[in-house]
Amino acid sequence: MIEYNPAAARYYQEVSEQCIHYLSIDGVIFGFHQNQLKVLLLRWKGTEEWSLPGGFIRKAESVDVAAQRIMQERTGLNELYLHQFHVFGEAVRYNQEETWRKINLPIQGVNWSERTISLGYYALVDHSKVVPTPDFLTEECRWWSLDQIPALLFDHNYIINVALASLRKQLNDQPINHLLPEAFTIPELQRLHETILGYPLDARNFYKKTMASGSLERLSERRAGTPHKAPYLYRFNLRPFA
Amino acid sequence: MIEYNPAAARYYQEVSEQCIHYLSIDGVIFGFHQNQLKVLLLRWKGTEEWSLPGGFIRKAESVDVAAQRIMQERTGLNELYLHQFHVFGEAVRYNQEETWRKINLPIQGVNWSERTISLGYYALVDHSKVVPTPDFLTEECRWWSLDQIPALLFDHNYIINVALASLRKQLNDQPINHLLPEAFTIPELQRLHETILGYPLDARNFYKKTMASGSLERLSERRAGTPHKAPYLYRFNLRPFA
Repeated sequence: MIEYNPAAARYYQEVSEQCIHYLSIDGVIFGFHQNQLKVLLLRWKGTEEWSLPGGFIRKAESVDVAAQRIMQERTGLNELYLHQFHVFGEAVRYNQEETWRKINLPIQGVNWSERTISLGYYALVDHSKVVPTPDFLTEECRWWSLDQIPALLFDHNYIINVALASLRKQLNDQPINHLLPEAFTIPELQRLHETILGYPLDARNFYKKTMASGSLERLSERRAGTPHKAPYLYRFNLRPFA
Repeated sequence: MIEYNPAAARYYQEVSEQCIHYLSIDGVIFGFHQNQLKVLLLRWKGTEEWSLPGGFIRKAESVDVAAQRIMQERTGLNELYLHQFHVFGEAVRYNQEETWRKINLPIQGVNWSERTISLGYYALVDHSKVVPTPDFLTEECRWWSLDQIPALLFDHNYIINVALASLRKQLNDQPINHLLPEAFTIPELQRLHETILGYPLDARNFYKKTMASGSLERLSERRAGTPHKAPYLYRFNLRPFA
């Protein structure tokens, strides 16, 4: 039997009273670190069970504001770049009985809906700026490489797959600069594209196409500490051209 | 005072008991007719007020199934092509008091939520196959050209704008063949692209690009009854190439 602290029980009582039943938000928070695409996962108290960060919408709160609040609490970041990518609305999304048994949720006696429709958001964040922070129900929050993610609670493996497919499809429409530090080299940007797409790109074509887009600005500094000739640093030029 | 029939009052009572509060579905049903992109709108009983078709999700019903059911009721079509394009989740989406006054909804005494989060779907349909059908609360259902749409109830003008922007952005990812009859000419297909995009395309480039895509199959018939040399008919070849 897992011991939840009184704060957790109070949290669920408050959610039941203050939030919209039948609806939840799940967040796939993407970060890029050591040439790997990672997502932030939470480990539930007293278990080896992991899930995505998530939460609920207050009765008078905008859905996008709720998503910002939830992701902010797990990352410490203000004004994250968020994209609402899919509604997970199947009548039966996962085996509830099995899931509750695994995590022994302290929701006995709490009035809640029999199913939850989840609004899926992904966030693109600068990995180095995130302070992973668990919530009332969890005791560990950390990054997992996409290729090492364990079997997750709920339908969260599926949600990550749909988020990644959506990001791939919209790669050129999404501001993926949010995944990089402000200054980066062209090979680092190429590696990010390759990691999202899952296949290698031709370096010369990538360089030409990227330069032709007019979206990059070359800085005067170069990347120090590399074995070869130090490559130039760039940053995204987000101002539109006059 | 508008007189609603007992079926309408019963409908709202049932919705309150059987459907998920706080959530609705709104549908932007796109059709293509006489070189114009059109949407299906409903006129509310005893008024000159128009809105999009919409409805609610039953407590044990998948969201996508609910969307199919609602759009099917308004069009007579089975298995419509639907795409969930945006969640309209602002805390205040429109002036409720003003809106209820305009349509005098028969929901006095019905237990319902103070706001509604709307899941926006667009449908791509063959205009010639649709039988526009009003619901309990409306007395007219018909096509409107996008450039002639009046001021609509709720935030429905905004919803149409977001749907159109989404369709434009995803034009090459969406099966827009659903907007055409099975057999069409290349100029007809070009006109559809131009109408969605809102600007003209070069005919030679369009022809070359379309042929290069390998997605069309030329039929043995030609379009009869045209003043010039009868153009070939094509259809989408949806089978993947071996």
